[in-house]
Parts: sequence; structure tokens; C-alpha cells
Amino acid sequence: MKTYEIAAIPGDGIGKEVVPEAVRVLHEMEKIHGDLKFEFTEFPWSSEYYLEHEQMMPDDGLETLKTFDAIFLGAVGNPEIVPDHISLWELLINIRRNFEQVINIRPARAFQGLRSKLANPEDFDLIVVRENSEGEYSEVGGTIYQGEEKIAIQNAIFSRKGTERAMHYAFELAKSRGKKVTSATKSNGIYHSMPFWDGVFHDLSNQYPDVETEQMHIDALAASFVTKPESFDTIVASNLFGDILTDIGAAIMGSVGIAPAANININGKYPSMFEPVHGSAPDIVGKGIANPIGQIWTAKMMLDHFGETDMGDRLLSAIEAVIRKGVVTTDIGGKATTTEVTDEIIRQIAEET
Amino acid sequence: MKTYEIAAIPGDGIGKEVVPEAVRVLHEMEKIHGDLKFEFTEFPWSSEYYLEHEQMMPDDGLETLKTFDAIFLGAVGNPEIVPDHISLWELLINIRRNFEQVINIRPARAFQGLRSKLANPEDFDLIVVRENSEGEYSEVGGTIYQGEEKIAIQNAIFSRKGTERAMHYAFELAKSRGKKVTSATKSNGIYHSMPFWDGVFHDLSNQYPDVETEQMHIDALAASFVTKPESFDTIVASNLFGDILTDIGAAIMGSVGIAPAANININGKYPSMFEPVHGSAPDIVGKGIANPIGQIWTAKMMLDHFGETDMGDRLLSAIEAVIRKGVVTTDIGGKATTTEVTDEIIRQIAEET
Ligand SMILES: CC(C)[C@H](C(=O)O)[C@@H](O)C(=O)O
Ligand SMILES: CC(C)[C@H](C(=O)O)[C@@H](O)C(=O)O
Repeated sequence: MKTYEIAAIPGDGIGKEVVPEAVRVLHEMEKIHGDLKFEFTEFPWSSEYYLEHEQMMPDDGLETLKTFDAIFLGAVGNPEIVPDHISLWELLINIRRNFEQVINIRPARAFQGLRSKLANPEDFDLIVVRENSEGEYSEVGGTIYQGEEKIAIQNAIFSRKGTERAMHYAFELAKSRGKKVTSATKSNGIYHSMPFWDGVFHDLSNQYPDVETEQMHIDALAASFVTKPESFDTIVASNLFGDILTDIGAAIMGSVGIAPAANININGKYPSMFEPVHGSAPDIVGKGIANPIGQIWTAKMMLDHFGETDMGDRLLSAIEAVIRKGVVTTDIGGKATTTEVTDEIIRQIAEET
Repeated sequence: MKTYEIAAIPGDGIGKEVVPEAVRVLHEMEKIHGDLKFEFTEFPWSSEYYLEHEQMMPDDGLETLKTFDAIFLGAVGNPEIVPDHISLWELLINIRRNFEQVINIRPARAFQGLRSKLANPEDFDLIVVRENSEGEYSEVGGTIYQGEEKIAIQNAIFSRKGTERAMHYAFELAKSRGKKVTSATKSNGIYHSMPFWDGVFHDLSNQYPDVETEQMHIDALAASFVTKPESFDTIVASNLFGDILTDIGAAIMGSVGIAPAANININGKYPSMFEPVHGSAPDIVGKGIANPIGQIWTAKMMLDHFGETDMGDRLLSAIEAVIRKGVVTTDIGGKATTTEVTDEIIRQIAEET
């Protein structure tokens, strides 16, 4: 019996509604596999936890998480009660950085039967490899003066090591996919970091002669996600640019509610973390209409990460079938509740076995 | 006779093809007005100019431009011959900064009869007010070490003055439009500059009690441009975020080829500059298929800026009519050439008089 120990952090808002759904699905995978076990330990770390404890997680939080095979996270953030830059930096970004989850990967693809926001999109299937440890997300900087004279200085830090790491990951991934890497840049406007980024990309391109390369400025690239998503295969982007592109990727799929993500620790020293792209969506909490597909597809990425790719593939094909059937939540044009979608996915998995 | 002296800089690539078209249209406006004159002086400053002179414009370039009522620019940049960060910083950004064109405005709206990239978009009509003088576009920063140890540090600079200026502009504009301002932020990830930005927005909101306000993180906002553009009225954004949003705005309209822009000098000390959103598009140069609408709509923004709003409105309604008729270039689903579209717009203006 192969057992995976998973730390579940439902977090805030709909995170608490969709994580249990994905857990149900994973337990179904155990059944059909027969020789696989997922042991979940749940942690209540969230904005509400902060209200009580004045911190997003206990002092030994990271120590505790370290021993798990993976972290399965819902959504963090509820600006009504805790400012975002506190909740995120103390929990999400804290984990990403301390556990050296230096790569964030997020796929976006067309689904048959899914009413896209795009008019007649061609079949697209892209993946964004996002540098997840440095860049524009940085605590370096501060403010000077007060009142009308106040100036804020924000440093973005790009290291050769961090940049190369993300690009190597993208090139390797592209080799197993469409053999094309697009680099997101803005070297025409951002004077130091982006020409540096381009230089590293240029150097690495030479090491992967079989992979086609292109670079696009983030403004044009963001627009091209809308106008011709089918032209992309693997995209490599900085922390901020990857963040923006993957939300657009979610939008062109049909809803941010279905987009999955993985924060990958590539040196194997710490657990990786799996969390959907969507946020805590306070506006729909408690209505039973949160789309569970983002969290469930995220579970598929966790399965793949564990090397259980057969299980991962089965899960994705169950998601595809359910979308095709139209048993989906309102955000993608259906009428089903959160639970009904999950039930249908579980039925589908069982049926296909 | 009211005369406007305009410096025309066609620049690179299709800039040289569409500027003359817009000039033709403006001469037509002279005719129907009867008491208006546009005097154009053309400057060959471009990447090709750089090849010959090792600079994008002569030393006294800014001195020369200063005396004009406006600058009418096509597109700058041809990375095949001059690296973008040189061509742009020496010409476009140089002019924006030295002429204190601290605001960039770019509308995006649905056009009847225009095949949008979005599936059944509702009627949308938004405008992005972009801070155009500081922020993420900054020469402050540099690199340290070489090879594997190299680190690039990029500073983004946000001043209270610059931020307030852009926000005041947005609030004032919103008062004459839909009375709603959306602030583009990323204070959950970018630790210093964006919480500062939010603070200024919060302060100014209180000064405009009649204007509804909202703030969204740039990732979610970019996605919402795709999923519900009709929910926006006026958006205020930093230099980089505004840049990204306006390209998405162009994409959801149907093509970057139709999107206009204005770089506004708000203190009246220097000329403002009018340039479409699209770039020099080397791939379609010489084919006669460049969409002239971006440049022509940009001319409408220049007319409005001169206070010739009646002329501006007429020009826009001619553009609308031509789009409705489908006399458009291939990028928006038509078969017309650059010249044919312009001819049709001119015919339309003459007819409507
Ligand atoms: C060419 C580039 C520097 C420019 C910018 O990003 O400002 C362009 O994209 C624009 O939006 O006008
Ligand atoms: C919540 C926020 C800090 C986060 C990010 O920008 O990284 C989120 O948008 C994401 O993409 O995971």
C-alpha cells in the first residue's frame, strides 16, 4: 500500500467548500486503484485563524508542514478581516519561499462542450511556467517622506539562478509537449530586469536547439492569449507576469473556477503545494455554487507530481466528461451545485473503471 | 482660421503606412470645417534613423518638438536593427517624460458589426487612465556580479504626486462618464508600492463621494476584461498595469489595430503626443493591409484634446459607420486594404456633412 501524507489547508471562503470535495474525489481514486492511500491532516490556518491568534499559522507551522508529502491548499485571503499583503505573505508566499517552491505551473486548455468566453476558440492547450520565488514579489524596498512628498520604492530582484531554473524547467517541459517556449518579457519598458531576463533566455535557447523559441512583450502576449491562444505551447514568465497570464488563461478557458496550479519544490527537500488559481471568493461563500473543478484538477496535478500519472489522467478524463455533459456550476453556464459536480465526477471515475 | 502645428513622426514599420492615412483624414476634416488648418511637419526619427546617426533623434530633437501644438506618432521599434529598450527609451519614453506627458488614456469599446474575439460580448465602453511617467518603467537599478552569480535589481518608483495626479485625472474623467473608478492593484503580492498605491486611492476616493470606487488585483482585473468588460467604466492603473490592460482592451475590441492612445501633458507646458496602441508590426509591412483605424481614432483623440470635440465626434461616427459596413482590413475580418478603409472613412465624413 502506497501512502501519501497530505496537509490540507482549506484556508478562507470557498477554499473551505472545495477542498473537501477534492478530498472526496481522491478517496474515490483510492478505491479504484486499490493499493493507494491518501492520509489527510487538516490545518485551520486562515484569515479567521489570524483574528484569533494574530498570525496566519503557528510559529512551528512550517516545521509541521515539512514532514508531509504535499500541501493541498484551498484559497487564502479575506481582505475584509486581514489585509491581503499580510494574509498572503504570512501563509501562501511564506510557504512558497521557505519550501523553495520555485516553480509554479498552470495549464489552460479548451474543453469540448465548455462555453468559452472567446468566440469560436481554436483548440488550445498551453502551460505557463512561472518563476515563483523572486522577481516582482519582493519585500525589498520601502517608503520615504510623508504626505505629499511620500515616495515608495519597490525592488524587483532577478537572479541568474532563479531565472535559469524557471527557464530550464520550461524547456524540459516543452520537450515533452509542443517543443516551443515563449518568453514573457517587457524589455522595451522595464530597463534593467527584463533585458537581463532576455539575455538568460537567449543563452538557454542555445542549449535546447530542438525547442523553438519566441519572446513577446507581456502586453502583446496577454492580448494574444485572447486573440490566438492556440499559438502557444509552453510559456515562461516572471512571478508577476506569470500571475497575470494564468488568470487570463483561466478566463479564456471559461472561468477562473476551473484553473489548477502547482507550486513545485524541484530539489525534493520540501513538500510541493497544490492550490487552484481562484481566490476565496467571499461573494459566493455559503451558496453551494463554488466550482469544485479547479480544486479537483489541482488534485490531478498532485497525483502527477506523485508519479501517479495514470490516476491523474483518469481524473482529468472524468472532468472532461462531466464538462461535456454540462453537469457544471453557474460560472460556466450550468445549474449544478458544488456537490452535484463532484458526485458526477466520482460517478464518472467509477464508471470508466 | 485656427491653425494647429503638428509634428508627425511616422517612426518604424507600419507607422509609416498609417500616419499618412490619418493625415489624409485630417485634411478632410479641414474641408468640412472650413475654418481649421492642420500643418504637419514630418520627422524621420526611427530605428532606421538610428542606424545612420547612432541616435533616435538629433540632440535638439526635444527643442524642435517643443514648439508644436501636438506630436502625432505612428509606431517606434524594430528589434531586428535596434534593441527595443534603446529605441523606445530614446524616443517614445524620452518624449513622454521630458514633455511631462504624465497621463496616458486609452479607450476600449464594443463596435456594432465588429466581430469581437469575445463570444457575445455585452456592450462595453471603458477607458484606462494610465500613470505615464514613473512606476515600473524606471532606469533606476542595475546588475551585480557576472555569470551564474549575476543579479538584476529593478526599482519601481511611485510618488504620491505622480500617483495622485493619475488618480485625480481618472476621477475627473469618471465624473463625465459612468461615475465609477476601478483601481488596478497587486497589493497582495507586491509588498511596498502597491499598498502605497491603495492608500492614495483610498484617500482620493473620499474626495469624490459621487464616484463609485472598487479595487481589483491586476490578475483578476485582466481576466475580468475578458469575462465581463461591461462592468468597467474608468480604470486607473500604474504604467505597467495600464500597458497590459490596454492591450487586452484592444484584443477584446477585436484587434490591436484599432486601439488609440493619447499621452497627455496636463500642465500645458509641452505638447501632448498621440500614438495608437499597436506597434510597428514588421511582419505585415509593405503589404498594404495595416489597419489605419488605430491611427485615425488616435487623430480623433487629438481633435478632442484641441477642443475640437465636434470634429472628433464626427470622425468617430465615420469610423463606426465604416466598421458597421464591414469595409475593414483582414485583422478584423475584412478584405479591404489600408487605403480603401481610409477612403471609405473620408467618403463617410463627406457624406455625413
Ligand atoms: C513600446 C512600449 C515601451 C510602450 C509601453 O509599454 O509604454 C507600448 O507598449 C505602449 O503601451 O505604448
Ligand atoms: C494571492 C496572490 C498573492 C497570488 C499570487 O499573485 O501569487 C495569487 O494571485 C496566485 O496567483 O496564486
